[in-house]
Amino acid sequence: MTPTITAFENSPDGGQGLARDMRVRWALEEVGQPYDVRLVSFKSMKEAPHLKRHPFGQIPTYEEGNLMLFESGAIVLHLAQHHDGLLPPDEAGQGRAISWLFAALNSVEPLIVEREQSWFIERDYPWYAERIALLDERILARLGELSRRLGKAEWLDGEFSVGDLMMVMVLRRAEDTNTLEHYPNLMAYKLRGEARPAYQRAFAAQLEVAKAAGR
Amino acid sequence: MTPTITAFENSPDGGQGLARDMRVRWALEEVGQPYDVRLVSFKSMKEAPHLKRHPFGQIPTYEEGNLMLFESGAIVLHLAQHHDGLLPPDEAGQGRAISWLFAALNSVEPLIVEREQSWFIERDYPWYAERIALLDERILARLGELSRRLGKAEWLDGEFSVGDLMMVMVLRRAEDTNTLEHYPNLMAYKLRGEARPAYQRAFAAQLEVAKAAGR
Repeated sequence: MTPTITAFENSPDGGQGLARDMRVRWALEEVGQPYDVRLVSFKSMKEAPHLKRHPFGQIPTYEEGNLMLFESGAIVLHLAQHHDGLLPPDEAGQGRAISWLFAALNSVEPLIVEREQSWFIERDYPWYAERIALLDERILARLGELSRRLGKAEWLDGEFSVGDLMMVMVLRRAEDTNTLEHYPNLMAYKLRGEARPAYQRAFAAQLEVAKAAGR
Repeated sequence: MTPTITAFENSPDGGQGLARDMRVRWALEEVGQPYDVRLVSFKSMKEAPHLKRHPFGQIPTYEEGNLMLFESGAIVLHLAQHHDGLLPPDEAGQGRAISWLFAALNSVEPLIVEREQSWFIERDYPWYAERIALLDERILARLGELSRRLGKAEWLDGEFSVGDLMMVMVLRRAEDTNTLEHYPNLMAYKLRGEARPAYQRAFAAQLEVAKAAGR
Protein backbone atom coordinates (compact mmCIF):
# COMPACT_ATOMS: atom_id res chain seq x y z
CA MET A 1 0.00 0.00 0.00
CA THR A 2 1.35 3.42 -0.98
CA PRO A 3 1.68 5.63 2.09
CA THR A 4 0.42 9.22 2.11
CA ILE A 5 2.31 12.03 3.81
CA THR A 6 1.17 15.60 4.46
CA ALA A 7 3.13 18.72 3.51
CA PHE A 8 2.52 22.47 3.31
CA GLU A 9 0.48 23.59 0.31
CA ASN A 10 2.50 26.81 0.50
CA SER A 11 5.65 26.24 2.57
CA PRO A 12 6.96 29.25 4.52
CA ASP A 13 10.46 28.52 3.18
CA GLY A 14 9.37 28.77 -0.46
CA GLY A 15 10.90 25.44 -1.44
CA GLN A 16 14.26 25.53 0.34
CA GLY A 17 13.56 22.06 1.75
CA LEU A 18 13.57 23.25 5.35
CA ALA A 19 10.02 22.17 6.19
CA ARG A 20 9.83 18.89 8.05
CA ASP A 21 8.19 16.93 5.21
CA MET A 22 11.65 17.03 3.57
CA ARG A 23 13.00 14.62 6.20
CA VAL A 24 10.26 12.13 5.46
CA ARG A 25 10.54 12.52 1.67
CA TRP A 26 14.30 11.92 1.95
CA ALA A 27 13.83 8.79 4.07
CA LEU A 28 11.20 7.47 1.64
CA GLU A 29 13.60 8.00 -1.26
CA GLU A 30 16.49 6.33 0.61
CA VAL A 31 14.43 3.19 1.16
CA GLY A 32 12.87 3.30 -2.34
CA GLN A 33 9.26 3.63 -1.15
CA PRO A 34 6.89 5.54 -3.49
CA TYR A 35 4.45 7.83 -1.71
CA ASP A 36 1.51 10.16 -2.18
CA VAL A 37 1.32 13.69 -0.77
CA ARG A 38 -1.68 15.45 0.68
CA LEU A 39 -1.13 19.21 0.78
CA VAL A 40 -2.60 21.21 3.66
CA SER A 41 -3.11 24.94 3.97
CA PHE A 42 -2.35 26.95 7.12
CA LYS A 43 -6.10 27.08 7.66
CA SER A 44 -6.92 23.42 7.08
CA MET A 45 -3.97 22.32 9.27
CA LYS A 46 -5.80 23.65 12.30
CA GLU A 47 -9.16 22.09 11.45
CA ALA A 48 -10.63 18.86 12.77
CA PRO A 49 -9.65 16.39 10.01
CA HIS A 50 -5.96 17.32 10.21
CA LEU A 51 -5.97 17.70 14.00
CA LYS A 52 -7.06 14.09 14.08
CA ARG A 53 -3.88 13.22 12.18
CA HIS A 54 -1.65 15.58 14.16
CA PRO A 55 -2.53 16.80 17.68
CA PHE A 56 -0.61 20.06 17.19
CA GLY A 57 -1.94 20.72 13.68
CA GLN A 58 1.44 20.46 12.00
CA ILE A 59 3.09 18.58 9.16
CA PRO A 60 4.29 15.95 8.36
CA THR A 61 2.03 13.01 9.04
CA TYR A 62 2.18 9.51 7.56
CA GLU A 63 -0.76 7.26 6.73
CA GLU A 64 -0.49 3.68 5.52
CA GLY A 65 -3.66 1.63 5.90
CA ASN A 66 -4.68 1.94 9.53
CA LEU A 67 -1.21 3.13 10.55
CA MET A 68 -1.16 6.86 11.29
CA LEU A 69 2.03 8.52 12.47
CA PHE A 70 2.97 12.09 13.35
CA GLU A 71 6.33 13.72 14.23
CA SER A 72 9.07 13.48 11.62
CA GLY A 73 11.26 11.49 14.05
CA ALA A 74 8.63 8.79 14.50
CA ILE A 75 8.02 8.59 10.76
CA VAL A 76 11.66 8.23 9.69
CA LEU A 77 12.21 5.71 12.50
CA HIS A 78 9.25 3.66 11.23
CA LEU A 79 10.65 3.71 7.70
CA ALA A 80 14.12 2.77 8.99
CA GLN A 81 12.78 -0.16 11.01
CA HIS A 82 10.52 -1.52 8.24
CA HIS A 83 12.75 -1.15 5.18
CA ASP A 84 16.41 -1.69 4.33
CA GLY A 85 18.71 1.26 3.85
CA LEU A 86 18.63 3.45 6.94
CA LEU A 87 19.94 1.18 9.70
CA PRO A 88 22.95 -1.13 9.95
CA PRO A 89 22.24 -4.87 10.19
CA ASP A 90 23.54 -5.42 13.76
CA GLU A 91 21.58 -4.51 16.88
CA ALA A 92 24.41 -2.53 18.46
CA GLY A 93 24.81 -0.43 15.32
CA GLN A 94 21.05 0.10 15.14
CA GLY A 95 21.07 1.32 18.74
CA ARG A 96 23.79 3.86 17.99
CA ALA A 97 22.03 5.09 14.84
CA ILE A 98 18.76 5.55 16.73
CA SER A 99 20.65 7.33 19.53
CA TRP A 100 21.89 9.82 16.92
CA LEU A 101 18.34 10.26 15.60
CA PHE A 102 17.18 11.30 19.07
CA ALA A 103 20.32 13.41 19.61
CA ALA A 104 19.58 15.39 16.45
CA LEU A 105 16.00 16.05 17.55
CA ASN A 106 16.43 16.61 21.28
CA SER A 107 20.04 17.79 21.80
CA VAL A 108 20.80 19.79 18.65
CA GLU A 109 17.61 20.96 16.92
CA PRO A 110 16.00 22.79 19.89
CA LEU A 111 18.85 25.33 20.11
CA ILE A 112 18.65 26.04 16.40
CA VAL A 113 14.85 26.28 16.33
CA GLU A 114 14.98 28.64 19.31
CA ARG A 115 17.22 30.98 17.33
CA GLU A 116 14.77 30.83 14.39
CA GLN A 117 11.84 31.52 16.72
CA SER A 118 13.71 34.43 18.27
CA TRP A 119 13.66 36.19 14.91
CA PHE A 120 9.91 35.68 14.53
CA ILE A 121 9.04 36.63 18.10
CA GLU A 122 11.73 38.98 19.40
CA ARG A 123 13.28 40.81 16.47
CA ASP A 124 11.54 44.08 17.37
CA TYR A 125 12.53 43.96 21.03
CA PRO A 126 15.52 46.04 22.15
CA TRP A 127 17.34 42.99 23.47
CA TYR A 128 17.28 41.04 20.20
CA ALA A 129 20.95 41.47 19.19
CA GLU A 130 22.26 40.64 22.63
CA ARG A 131 20.08 37.59 22.86
CA ILE A 132 21.11 36.28 19.44
CA ALA A 133 24.71 36.43 20.67
CA LEU A 134 23.79 34.28 23.70
CA LEU A 135 21.95 31.80 21.48
CA ASP A 136 24.84 31.57 19.04
CA GLU A 137 27.21 30.81 21.91
CA ARG A 138 25.05 27.85 22.90
CA ILE A 139 24.77 26.62 19.31
CA LEU A 140 28.53 26.92 18.80
CA ALA A 141 29.23 24.93 21.97
CA ARG A 142 26.95 22.08 20.93
CA LEU A 143 28.16 22.04 17.32
CA GLY A 144 31.73 22.02 18.66
CA GLU A 145 31.00 18.81 20.56
CA LEU A 146 29.41 17.31 17.46
CA SER A 147 32.35 18.38 15.30
CA ARG A 148 34.86 16.77 17.69
CA ARG A 149 32.90 13.55 17.69
CA LEU A 150 32.55 13.42 13.90
CA GLY A 151 36.26 14.17 13.39
CA LYS A 152 37.35 13.05 9.95
CA ALA A 153 34.64 10.40 9.56
CA GLU A 154 32.23 10.45 6.65
CA TRP A 155 29.14 9.74 8.76
CA LEU A 156 28.44 9.73 12.51
CA ASP A 157 28.82 5.98 12.98
CA GLY A 158 29.93 3.80 10.08
CA GLU A 159 27.57 3.79 7.10
CA PHE A 160 24.96 6.50 6.42
CA SER A 161 21.96 5.95 8.72
CA VAL A 162 18.69 7.48 9.86
CA GLY A 163 20.79 9.33 12.48
CA ASP A 164 22.79 11.07 9.75
CA LEU A 165 19.64 11.84 7.78
CA MET A 166 18.14 13.70 10.73
CA MET A 167 21.39 15.37 11.78
CA VAL A 168 21.98 16.72 8.27
CA MET A 169 18.42 18.08 8.17
CA VAL A 170 18.91 19.75 11.56
CA LEU A 171 22.24 21.27 10.49
CA ARG A 172 20.53 22.65 7.39
CA ARG A 173 18.31 24.71 9.70
CA ALA A 174 21.48 26.37 11.05
CA GLU A 175 22.58 27.51 7.58
CA ASP A 176 21.60 31.13 8.17
CA THR A 177 23.17 31.45 11.61
CA ASN A 178 26.89 31.80 10.73
CA THR A 179 27.62 29.15 13.34
CA LEU A 180 27.99 26.09 11.14
CA GLU A 181 30.81 27.68 9.15
CA HIS A 182 33.03 27.52 12.25
CA TYR A 183 33.22 23.76 11.76
CA PRO A 184 34.41 22.79 8.27
CA ASN A 185 33.94 19.08 8.95
CA LEU A 186 30.26 19.67 9.78
CA MET A 187 29.83 21.78 6.64
CA ALA A 188 31.36 18.98 4.55
CA TYR A 189 29.18 16.41 6.34
CA LYS A 190 26.05 18.40 5.53
CA LEU A 191 27.12 18.71 1.89
CA ARG A 192 27.71 14.95 1.71
CA GLY A 193 24.15 14.43 2.87
CA GLU A 194 22.73 16.89 0.37
CA ALA A 195 24.70 15.24 -2.44
CA ARG A 196 22.98 11.88 -2.01
CA PRO A 197 20.70 11.01 -4.96
CA ALA A 198 17.79 10.28 -2.60
CA TYR A 199 18.15 13.74 -1.04
CA GLN A 200 18.21 15.31 -4.50
CA ARG A 201 15.01 13.53 -5.55
CA ALA A 202 13.27 14.53 -2.32
CA PHE A 203 14.41 18.13 -2.69
CA ALA A 204 13.14 18.31 -6.26
CA ALA A 205 9.75 16.93 -5.21
CA GLN A 206 9.21 19.53 -2.50
CA LEU A 207 10.45 22.29 -4.83
CA GLU A 208 7.79 21.29 -7.37
CA VAL A 209 5.12 21.97 -4.75
CA ALA A 210 6.58 25.40 -3.98
CA LYS A 211 6.70 26.28 -7.68
CA ALA A 212 3.08 25.19 -8.14
CA ALA A 213 2.16 27.47 -5.23
CA GLY A 214 3.84 30.31 -7.11
CA ARG A 215 6.62 30.88 -4.59
CA MET B 1 22.78 -9.53 31.22
CA THR B 2 22.06 -6.68 33.66
CA PRO B 3 22.26 -3.32 31.89
CA THR B 4 24.18 -0.39 33.39
CA ILE B 5 22.93 3.16 33.17
CA THR B 6 24.73 6.38 34.09
CA ALA B 7 23.36 9.07 36.40
CA PHE B 8 24.63 12.19 38.20
CA GLU B 9 26.71 11.48 41.31
CA ASN B 10 25.34 14.78 42.59
CA SER B 11 22.22 15.76 40.65
CA PRO B 12 21.59 19.50 40.25
CA ASP B 13 17.95 18.92 41.27
CA GLY B 14 18.92 17.36 44.62
CA GLY B 15 16.76 14.27 44.11
CA GLN B 16 13.56 15.75 42.68
CA GLY B 17 13.66 13.20 39.88
CA LEU B 18 14.02 15.80 37.17
CA ALA B 19 17.34 14.57 35.78
CA ARG B 20 17.00 12.46 32.67
CA ASP B 21 18.12 9.20 34.30
CA MET B 22 14.68 9.20 35.98
CA ARG B 23 13.02 8.49 32.61
CA VAL B 24 15.20 5.46 32.08
CA ARG B 25 14.84 4.20 35.66
CA TRP B 26 11.06 4.49 35.31
CA ALA B 27 11.02 2.58 32.01
CA LEU B 28 13.26 -0.14 33.51
CA GLU B 29 10.87 -0.47 36.45
CA GLU B 30 7.81 -0.60 34.17
CA VAL B 31 9.26 -3.52 32.22
CA GLY B 32 10.68 -5.24 35.33
CA GLN B 33 14.33 -5.11 34.27
CA PRO B 34 16.90 -4.88 37.11
CA TYR B 35 19.81 -2.53 36.39
CA ASP B 36 23.10 -1.22 37.70
CA VAL B 37 24.00 2.44 37.97
CA ARG B 38 27.36 4.07 37.31
CA LEU B 39 27.50 7.52 38.88
CA VAL B 40 29.42 10.25 37.10
CA SER B 41 30.65 13.60 38.43
CA PHE B 42 30.40 16.88 36.50
CA LYS B 43 34.14 16.53 35.91
CA SER B 44 34.24 12.89 34.80
CA MET B 45 31.24 13.43 32.48
CA LYS B 46 33.40 15.59 30.26
CA GLU B 47 36.39 13.22 30.21
CA ALA B 48 37.28 10.70 27.53
CA PRO B 49 35.74 7.49 28.97
CA HIS B 50 32.31 9.08 29.37
CA LEU B 51 32.55 11.09 26.13
CA LYS B 52 32.97 7.74 24.43
CA ARG B 53 29.60 6.73 25.90
CA HIS B 54 27.93 10.08 25.24
CA PRO B 55 29.16 12.54 22.58
CA PHE B 56 27.85 15.55 24.53
CA GLY B 57 29.15 14.34 27.92
CA GLN B 58 25.69 14.00 29.45
CA ILE B 59 23.61 11.41 31.25
CA PRO B 60 21.89 8.99 30.89
CA THR B 61 23.61 6.27 28.89
CA TYR B 62 22.74 2.58 28.69
CA GLU B 63 25.17 -0.33 28.32
CA GLU B 64 24.19 -3.96 27.86
CA GLY B 65 26.93 -6.18 26.49
CA ASN B 66 28.15 -4.52 23.31
CA LEU B 67 25.02 -2.39 23.07
CA MET B 68 25.70 1.24 24.03
CA LEU B 69 22.92 3.81 23.85
CA PHE B 70 22.69 7.52 24.65
CA GLU B 71 19.74 9.96 24.73
CA SER B 72 16.89 9.13 27.08
CA GLY B 73 14.48 8.84 24.14
CA ALA B 74 16.57 6.17 22.43
CA ILE B 75 16.98 4.24 25.67
CA VAL B 76 13.30 4.14 26.63
CA LEU B 77 12.40 3.24 23.03
CA HIS B 78 14.87 0.34 23.15
CA LEU B 79 13.35 -0.90 26.41
CA ALA B 80 9.84 -0.53 24.98
CA GLN B 81 10.69 -2.46 21.82
CA HIS B 82 12.53 -5.27 23.62
CA HIS B 83 10.28 -5.88 26.64
CA ASP B 84 6.57 -6.05 27.31
CA GLY B 85 4.83 -3.25 29.14
CA LEU B 86 5.44 0.02 27.31
CA LEU B 87 3.86 -0.53 23.90
CA PRO B 88 0.48 -1.90 22.79
CA PRO B 89 0.50 -5.21 20.90
CA ASP B 90 -0.72 -3.91 17.52
CA GLU B 91 1.50 -2.10 15.02
CA ALA B 92 -0.84 0.87 14.60
CA GLY B 93 -0.97 1.41 18.36
CA GLN B 94 2.80 1.11 18.59
CA GLY B 95 3.17 3.75 15.90
CA ARG B 96 0.93 6.17 17.79
CA ALA B 97 2.75 5.55 21.09
CA ILE B 98 6.13 6.17 19.44
CA SER B 99 4.73 9.31 17.78
CA TRP B 100 3.86 10.59 21.26
CA LEU B 101 7.36 9.75 22.50
CA PHE B 102 8.85 11.96 19.79
CA ALA B 103 6.19 14.63 20.36
CA ALA B 104 7.13 14.86 24.03
CA LEU B 105 10.82 15.27 23.17
CA ASN B 106 10.66 17.46 20.08
CA SER B 107 7.36 19.38 20.28
CA VAL B 108 6.84 19.91 24.03
CA GLU B 109 10.12 19.61 25.94
CA PRO B 110 12.16 22.21 24.01
CA LEU B 111 9.84 25.06 25.04
CA ILE B 112 10.01 24.03 28.68
CA VAL B 113 13.78 23.53 28.68
CA GLU B 114 14.21 26.92 27.03
CA ARG B 115 12.38 28.53 29.94
CA GLU B 116 14.62 26.67 32.41
CA GLN B 117 17.72 27.75 30.50
CA SER B 118 16.49 31.31 30.45
CA TRP B 119 16.73 31.39 34.24
CA PHE B 120 20.29 30.10 34.18
CA ILE B 121 21.48 32.32 31.36
CA GLU B 122 19.33 35.46 31.33
CA ARG B 123 18.02 36.07 34.83
CA ASP B 124 20.38 39.03 35.38
CA TYR B 125 19.54 40.70 32.08
CA PRO B 126 17.04 43.58 32.11
CA TRP B 127 14.74 41.82 29.67
CA TYR B 128 14.29 38.67 31.75
CA ALA B 129 10.73 39.28 33.02
CA GLU B 130 9.43 40.30 29.62
CA ARG B 131 11.04 37.30 27.98
CA ILE B 132 9.62 34.86 30.51
CA ALA B 133 6.17 36.18 29.65
CA LEU B 134 6.80 35.44 25.95
CA LEU B 135 8.05 31.96 26.77
CA ASP B 136 5.06 31.22 29.00
CA GLU B 137 2.74 32.25 26.19
CA ARG B 138 4.35 29.66 23.91
CA ILE B 139 4.24 26.95 26.59
CA LEU B 140 0.58 27.70 27.34
CA ALA B 141 -0.34 27.46 23.66
CA ARG B 142 1.33 24.07 23.25
CA LEU B 143 -0.02 22.69 26.52
CA GLY B 144 -3.47 23.92 25.46
CA GLU B 145 -3.28 21.78 22.32
CA LEU B 146 -2.11 18.83 24.39
CA SER B 147 -4.89 19.36 26.92
CA ARG B 148 -7.55 19.44 24.19
CA ARG B 149 -6.22 16.25 22.68
CA LEU B 150 -6.08 14.41 26.02
CA GLY B 151 -9.58 15.54 26.97
CA LYS B 152 -11.01 13.25 29.61
CA ALA B 153 -8.88 10.26 28.70
CA GLU B 154 -6.61 8.58 31.22
CA TRP B 155 -3.61 8.30 28.87
CA LEU B 156 -2.77 9.81 25.48
CA ASP B 157 -3.81 6.78 23.43
CA GLY B 158 -5.43 3.80 25.12
CA GLU B 159 -3.25 2.04 27.72
CA PHE B 160 -0.23 3.65 29.39
CA SER B 161 2.72 3.62 26.96
CA VAL B 162 6.26 4.86 26.45
CA GLY B 163 4.66 8.01 25.01
CA ASP B 164 2.90 8.72 28.30
CA LEU B 165 6.05 7.97 30.27
CA MET B 166 8.00 10.60 28.37
CA MET B 167 5.16 13.14 28.30
CA VAL B 168 4.68 12.90 32.07
CA MET B 169 8.42 13.41 32.60
CA VAL B 170 8.38 16.44 30.31
CA LEU B 171 5.35 17.93 32.08
CA ARG B 172 7.16 17.46 35.39
CA ARG B 173 9.82 19.88 34.11
CA ALA B 174 7.08 22.52 33.77
CA GLU B 175 6.07 22.21 37.42
CA ASP B 176 7.71 25.48 38.43
CA THR B 177 6.38 27.55 35.55
CA ASN B 178 2.76 28.18 36.65
CA THR B 179 1.65 27.12 33.18
CA LEU B 180 0.64 23.53 33.84
CA GLU B 181 -1.92 24.57 36.44
CA HIS B 182 -4.00 26.20 33.69
CA TYR B 183 -4.90 22.71 32.48
CA PRO B 184 -6.41 20.56 35.25
CA ASN B 185 -6.59 17.50 33.00
CA LEU B 186 -2.84 17.68 32.35
CA MET B 187 -2.17 18.10 36.09
CA ALA B 188 -4.27 15.02 36.80
CA TYR B 189 -2.54 13.12 33.98
CA LYS B 190 0.89 13.95 35.44
CA LEU B 191 -0.26 12.82 38.89
CA ARG B 192 -1.55 9.53 37.43
CA GLY B 193 1.90 8.92 36.00
CA GLU B 194 3.63 9.75 39.27
CA ALA B 195 1.27 7.43 41.16
CA ARG B 196 2.37 4.35 39.22
CA PRO B 197 4.30 1.86 41.40
CA ALA B 198 7.13 1.72 38.82
CA TYR B 199 7.48 5.50 38.97
CA GLN B 200 7.58 5.39 42.76
CA ARG B 201 10.35 2.78 42.78
CA ALA B 202 12.38 4.74 40.24
CA PHE B 203 11.90 7.95 42.20
CA ALA B 204 13.03 6.31 45.43
CA ALA B 205 16.15 4.93 43.75
CA GLN B 206 17.29 8.31 42.42
CA LEU B 207 16.48 9.94 45.77
CA GLU B 208 18.81 7.47 47.51
CA VAL B 209 21.66 8.72 45.33
CA ALA B 210 20.89 12.33 46.19
CA LYS B 211 20.78 11.51 49.90
CA ALA B 212 24.10 9.69 49.69
CA ALA B 213 25.56 12.80 48.02
CA GLY B 214 24.36 14.78 51.04
CA ARG B 215 21.80 16.87 49.16
